Formats: sequence, C-alpha cells, structure tokens
Amino acid sequence: MSSTDENTGVIGSIYRFFSTTPQIMAPKKVTIIGSGNWGSAIARIVGNTTKAYPQEFDPEVRMWVFEEVVNGEKLSEVINTRHENVKYLPGKILPTNVVAVTDLVESCVGSHLLVFVVPHQFVKGICEKLVGKIPTDAQAISLIKGVSTEKKGGLKLISEEIKEILKIEVSVLMGANLAPEVANDNFCEATIGCKRKATDGPLLKKLFHTENFRINVVEDAHTVELCGALKNVVACAAGFTDGLGYGDNTKAAVIRLGLMETTKFVEHYYPGSNLQTFFESCGIADLITTCYGGRNRKVCEAFVKTGKPLAEVEKELLNGQSAQGPLTAEEVFLMMQKTGLETKFPLFTAVHRICKGEMKPAELVDCLRNHPEHL
Amino acid sequence: MSSTDENTGVIGSIYRFFSTTPQIMAPKKVTIIGSGNWGSAIARIVGNTTKAYPQEFDPEVRMWVFEEVVNGEKLSEVINTRHENVKYLPGKILPTNVVAVTDLVESCVGSHLLVFVVPHQFVKGICEKLVGKIPTDAQAISLIKGVSTEKKGGLKLISEEIKEILKIEVSVLMGANLAPEVANDNFCEATIGCKRKATDGPLLKKLFHTENFRINVVEDAHTVELCGALKNVVACAAGFTDGLGYGDNTKAAVIRLGLMETTKFVEHYYPGSNLQTFFESCGIADLITTCYGGRNRKVCEAFVKTGKPLAEVEKELLNGQSAQGPLTAEEVFLMMQKTGLETKFPLFTAVHRICKGEMKPAELVDCLRNHPEHL
Repeated sequence: MSSTDENTGVIGSIYRFFSTTPQIMAPKKVTIIGSGNWGSAIARIVGNTTKAYPQEFDPEVRMWVFEEVVNGEKLSEVINTRHENVKYLPGKILPTNVVAVTDLVESCVGSHLLVFVVPHQFVKGICEKLVGKIPTDAQAISLIKGVSTEKKGGLKLISEEIKEILKIEVSVLMGANLAPEVANDNFCEATIGCKRKATDGPLLKKLFHTENFRINVVEDAHTVELCGALKNVVACAAGFTDGLGYGDNTKAAVIRLGLMETTKFVEHYYPGSNLQTFFESCGIADLITTCYGGRNRKVCEAFVKTGKPLAEVEKELLNGQSAQGPLTAEEVFLMMQKTGLETKFPLFTAVHRICKGEMKPAELVDCLRNHPEHL
Repeated sequence: MSSTDENTGVIGSIYRFFSTTPQIMAPKKVTIIGSGNWGSAIARIVGNTTKAYPQEFDPEVRMWVFEEVVNGEKLSEVINTRHENVKYLPGKILPTNVVAVTDLVESCVGSHLLVFVVPHQFVKGICEKLVGKIPTDAQAISLIKGVSTEKKGGLKLISEEIKEILKIEVSVLMGANLAPEVANDNFCEATIGCKRKATDGPLLKKLFHTENFRINVVEDAHTVELCGALKNVVACAAGFTDGLGYGDNTKAAVIRLGLMETTKFVEHYYPGSNLQTFFESCGIADLITTCYGGRNRKVCEAFVKTGKPLAEVEKELLNGQSAQGPLTAEEVFLMMQKTGLETKFPLFTAVHRICKGEMKPAELVDCLRNHPEHL
C-alpha cells in the first residue's frame, strides 16, 4: 500500500503527503451496527470518546437502528430528538452526537470503524448487504458473544464470519459487562482482542476506554472471543448446579472445570493462545459475572427447577432474547464429536446433552467426578 | 538419615531391611490437630480414607480436641461415644475410627501425618509443645488459611512457622471448601501443595481424595498457601463493593484485579510460582467461593452498610470466629511498605487502609481506576 519505494524525491514527498498522510490522520467515522441494550450502552461511551478525541474520530457516530414503532413513535426519531433509546435502554440519555440511521448501508458508508453489536444470527445478512459499500481499509470490532451457527459442526467465530464476507480486519471486545450496569456507569473492565495490537490497539482503546470502562488490549484475539462464547456454556452448567440446590463449593468447582475446558478447547482448536489472556476481563471476570448474574444461568436454573422444556423457560424469562449457551454448546459438541474429543470435555458435553434432553441435569456432577483434570 | 553408605554386605542388607523397609511400609498413624467446623468435616473424610487404605494408614485417626463442656457433657466423650461433634459440626456422624484425644502430645505421639486445622494464632503454641514428641520423619499438612501474625512486617506462612519449629516437611491443602458443604458431601475440589510431590504426593492424595472431594496435587506449595491467605484480602474488597451497592461487573473487576495482585505478589515475594497453580481449586475457585459466600465478604459488606467499627461487626456476625482478611491485609501491607511496593498493589493497600479506618470504603474504586493492570 505504501508508495515509499516507487516515489522518491520532492514529487514523491508531495505525493506521499497527499496520498498517505491525510488518510492516516483523517478523523475516522464510527458506526455502531446495532441499537439494543448493549449497543445503546456502548453508544453512550463511544459518543463521548469520539468527542474527546477529535483528531482521531469524527464526532458524528452513526448508529444503525432497526426501525420499530414504540408508543406510536418511530424509535429512530425518538433517538434523534430526545436522545433516548426508549425501547432498549430507557432512562439513559445518549450523547447528542449519536445519530440513529435506519438504512444499514447509509449508516456505514465512509465509516472506517464498524462496531458490531447485534444478535449473532443477523451478522451474515448484515455483512452481505455491506459488501462493496464500505472503505476497503475499514476495520470492524465485534462485541457479539457467541458463535456463528451457520455452519453446523465446524465452529466459526463471529469475527471470522465478518472477515470472510467483508475482507476487513476484525477485532473483538469482551468482558464482564452486563449492559445495564455499563449504562449505569458502574466501574468495570473489558478486553480488546486485536491481532494488529501495535498499529490498531491504541486507536481502539481510545474509542472505548473511559473512567469507568477500563480497557486492556491483547493480541490474542481468538482467545478473547472464544472466552466470550464458551463462558455461556459454563454458565449453563452453573445454572444447573444452582437449580439442583448445590452450594458454593460445587458451583466453584463447576466454574473452574468449565474454565479448564475452555483453556483446553482454545489450546486444541485455536493453537497459540496465551494463558495470561484467561486472566483478563474477558476470561475469569466475565465467567464469574455470567455464572452469577447472567441469563444463561438463570434459564438453566429454571429449567431444572420447573422441569419445563428449555425453549419454554427461555420464552418465559428472557422476553424475546435468546440464551446463547445451549446454541454454543451444540456447535462446540458437533466440533468435538467430529474430532472424537467429547470425552476430554465432559462438562461441555454434559451441558449439550442436558440441553437436548438426552441426559438428566442431576447427572452433571457424575460426569465431573472423573474429569481429566483430576487424573 | 539413611544407613546405606555405612552398612554394606549381608549384615548391611539385613540392617537396612529392618531399619528402613518397615518404616516405609508401616501404615502411618494420622492425627488431626483441631476439631472445629473444618477439622470435623475433614475428620469425616480422613476417617474413611484411612479405613479404605489399610496398607498406607493406621485406621485409628486421633483428633486433638480442646476439651469443652457442652450441655453438661465433655465434648471429647460425646465424640467418642456418639461420634458427633455436637458443638462444631452438629448433625454429622464421624467415622467410629476417629478418636478424640484431649492431650495434645498424646494425640500426636507416633503419628507420621499431622493434619493442622486450628485457628492460625494457636499454631505456634501447639508446635512448641510438640517439639521432640513426634517422629523425626513425620510430616505435616496445613489446612489453615491465613498467615502467621507473629512477626509483624515480614509475612510468614503457616507452613513456614510449623516447619521452623518442628523441623518437618509441611504440605498444604487449600480449595473452594466451605466446611458445612464439605460435611454435607457436596461435590467439590481441593488442591494439595506438596514440594516433594513425587514421593509424598500420592500418599497425601489418598488421605483426602474421595468421590466428592477431588484432589489435585501440585508442587508449587507456596503459591497454594498464599492463594488461601490472600483471597481473604480480595474478599474484603468484594464485600466493600457489595456494601456500596455496585453490581456484578464491578465485583468481577475487583475480584480479577485482586487475583492479578495475588499473582504479582507471589511472583515478587515468592519467585518461581507457576501461573497454572492459580487455575487450581486453591486459586480462582476458592477466590470465587470466598468472594460470594465467605465470612470476610459478609463482614466487610456489613461494615460498609452499618458504618460500625470492623471489630464490632465481626463480633456480631461471626459468633466468636475471626475474619482473616483484615489481619492478612495488615501483614501484607507491612511487607509491601518495607519494600516500597504499596503503589504496585492498590487493591491490597486500599483494603488495609479501609479496615484501619484510614480511608473510606467509597474510595476503593478510585484506587482501582489507575491500576497498573490498565496501563
């Protein structure tokens, strides 16, 4: 991309000045693709950081809003006039530089930073609509915790799905970040996984790092993303444990064994991970939050206590949102089955089988008694 | 100690057979020094494992009981007739081979395995009474979570204190083990830290490993012990966070930063630790249990909510037991102060200062905002 080799002397310098320097220095436009609970909470942060760093960012942040009518008003119009996402984050004011745009392509044209924060099942369709419509040197960052369920049996990361379709670099942001608490400006941490840490890390950190939202950047992006996906499987196991009435010791053992399976899974299927990454917010911290306060735990606890089918419990408790854990457990299981490794991951396997009704929740602990970790 | 060098030939062989072989093969006598809640829960396990492995262990397990009169009966007599510690573990039957002995020395004579499970402040006195009274090749295992408070300013581990006085090898057992749940046979895990893992590890594992109490043995004994002590400091921070009304995100960040300080502390003051050890039950699992269900958390939450002095809250809530966190925080702080490293450990430092009344609990989060982990 650089023209240094071909262009030397004064003309070369001028050429380089106009072709390279302004591209590097121009404030980047940011688009938030998604406007749910988490997307709106993140918009409150990004709206402020883009204003704080005018050299780095264009202060207008576009947020793609899937239009809905709420109490007779269009959601996008409410956001653009009263600066509140009355449907998904009521009571919290968005910075006025966050502008709702209902046309996906229009919201992304000219943007160099695309923040993906939509339910995972919409990622493919969104990316396909954006092909050829965004700058070739744009980059994305995915805040989506989960895996693609497009290709059964071969786990595909959301970042891989975006990259495959849009041919751009994709980083991820994961951490112990329950959206309502982030929206409430409670102190917390998050991890950015960015393969080009040296070049892109500082800019991405500036986009998200605030007084109450503390960012660490690591290079080990796959691990960061896998932590964000697999913790939901572990949270299902924690939920079963809660539903069965076990105490803190058993729950801690389940969480720990889940974490060990996560490290082994990443090590096996995505070699080159760094053990230190599991100590970041995306690792143990998010795991703890999810296993105590998250929706997968809640659904799985109720599943055991009520004896109702999982889908029914989900409908009753999540108000239309879905629990990622069972879906991720299925993808993970199919991948392990293909490589004949189910027995090495007894917790992951048990979660899938329990969710599918092939095994009783009460059998979970029996599966853990002879865990490879105890040999 | 071995006679191999001095004694060769047939006589040497015979000598070695009688002097060495029987010593190695003889079933070892086990004494549990302590009979509180945790000691009694562990006696239920050890009583059964010693019966299960008659080649390794003498089936009579002596338990040193500090004599008390409970409802007009001597505690030791109740234990030896009705096999129940009615004071500290009511409702749970002890195996009949667990024998209460009220004289400390008598309980330990001839024992090759001493299981220490008493409040930390009694360790020194107990050891001093045992000098010269136990086999020179005995070994101890400490289940005590905390540090010695004998020597202000230079952190001393309980295992170091025992070793210094009795001149025997000392291992440790730590993990996510709330005593009532262990006594209830709920599934859980624990970690044995044993420097002579290859020679002593298998025997120690046999002594504690059961269907519901799963043991991993690691060599990194100092780390195991320090995890058991320092988690109480982190739990104080978690308790402050709960008391202040923060949610799951903040608590997860506090727990994570506490764990990072623990790893750094161990790395700095006890070099040679293995990062993997923090993933054992003694590490993250115990930390989680303690930060959600433990007494340090509870006391520190109430301290913030009631505004009463720590000592008063402790008295009200713990029924005579003490919270180790504030004591450990003080030892840790004095050690850091001596080496000028307080600023590298803002969470540990803040916990100490808050416990001492030198800082308001509400200032905790401010101390964490510019944590070295975020640079």
